[in-house]
Amino acid sequence: MSARTDRTTFRQRPQRGSHDFDAMAAILDEALSCTIAFVDDGRPVSIPTTHWRMGERVLFHGGQGSRLARVMAAGAELCVTVTLVDGLVLARSAFHHSMNYRSVVLFGQAVEITDPAEKAAAFAALIEKLSPGRYASVRPPTDKELGATKLLALPLAEGGAKMRSGPPVDDEADMSWPVWAGVVPVTMVKGEPVAG
Amino acid sequence: MSARTDRTTFRQRPQRGSHDFDAMAAILDEALSCTIAFVDDGRPVSIPTTHWRMGERVLFHGGQGSRLARVMAAGAELCVTVTLVDGLVLARSAFHHSMNYRSVVLFGQAVEITDPAEKAAAFAALIEKLSPGRYASVRPPTDKELGATKLLALPLAEGGAKMRSGPPVDDEADMSWPVWAGVVPVTMVKGEPVAG
Repeated sequence: MSARTDRTTFRQRPQRGSHDFDAMAAILDEALSCTIAFVDDGRPVSIPTTHWRMGERVLFHGGQGSRLARVMAAGAELCVTVTLVDGLVLARSAFHHSMNYRSVVLFGQAVEITDPAEKAAAFAALIEKLSPGRYASVRPPTDKELGATKLLALPLAEGGAKMRSGPPVDDEADMSWPVWAGVVPVTMVKGEPVAG
Repeated sequence: MSARTDRTTFRQRPQRGSHDFDAMAAILDEALSCTIAFVDDGRPVSIPTTHWRMGERVLFHGGQGSRLARVMAAGAELCVTVTLVDGLVLARSAFHHSMNYRSVVLFGQAVEITDPAEKAAAFAALIEKLSPGRYASVRPPTDKELGATKLLALPLAEGGAKMRSGPPVDDEADMSWPVWAGVVPVTMVKGEPVAG
């Protein structure tokens, strides 16, 4: 689980890194979007999409015509990245300004899931992520709709989480610089639902 | 400006796409983080970081020892991706659930900026993005601090924005399905500052 490999070894600020499965899973579960990077003709392409998790797999979907879904189904090497910004770290010195964040970077190849029952269960899990308890009330997918959507699973295996939290860290000599210093928390908030 | 190329031509849902400079700039300015993808030994790597914009350039920074900063300074092909999630689109049918979002995907090569005055101005702009009006009050960067940080600029040139907004779009036959449907807005909110 979450094997440490050369490409998941933290070199910059390793104290901010973790290969812990639960830490990675929690970040993936909280985030509503990710980017999926692949290589196209030697050049990088990174596309935003939605992900969700079932156990040790991270799931993605796309229309049958979607280039990203086709690239993933073909077994391309992928890099999936998720970022949650938690705060603006306002230091006394310009140099020590920073952000609090939690991020996950995953590497690997996805596999396509084609079994209709598995697909239906996975899409139910996505709707439950968006709105817990909702799936039982919606019109379930037809066979045609299940067929129109590709479902892809990437093992939550080779990757790592990185995070910063807490106050700014200024140099001792700057501690009396006459400016407010601290953290402005940043949160993703769900607002009043708008019927439509 | 924002030239449309083969890799920035929208193939999926082109009605959601735009190559408009102002549309891309607004999304970049609102987002606090992005991912930068590059190719390493034939495989994709996508790292989260902070970006900011000055005119027609998107800026990034990193320590001199940072692998990402070095890769960028070396002229690697990059793909920069920014995503803002605006809402959960809860449809009557499982199939038509979606998200409202605004995203930008940029391609290109960065150039390193080494002039100390240009670097100081760019870091001032980053702090102004985090907290407008703040830069005049903080302890400015020393030459040593400026030297310790790489500054990289990517032209806001080859790229596109993609977005979805508005209510769910259900099939006519599902319009009387007995479930609430609509949008749950999602917003990034700044909280009460915590001194530290």
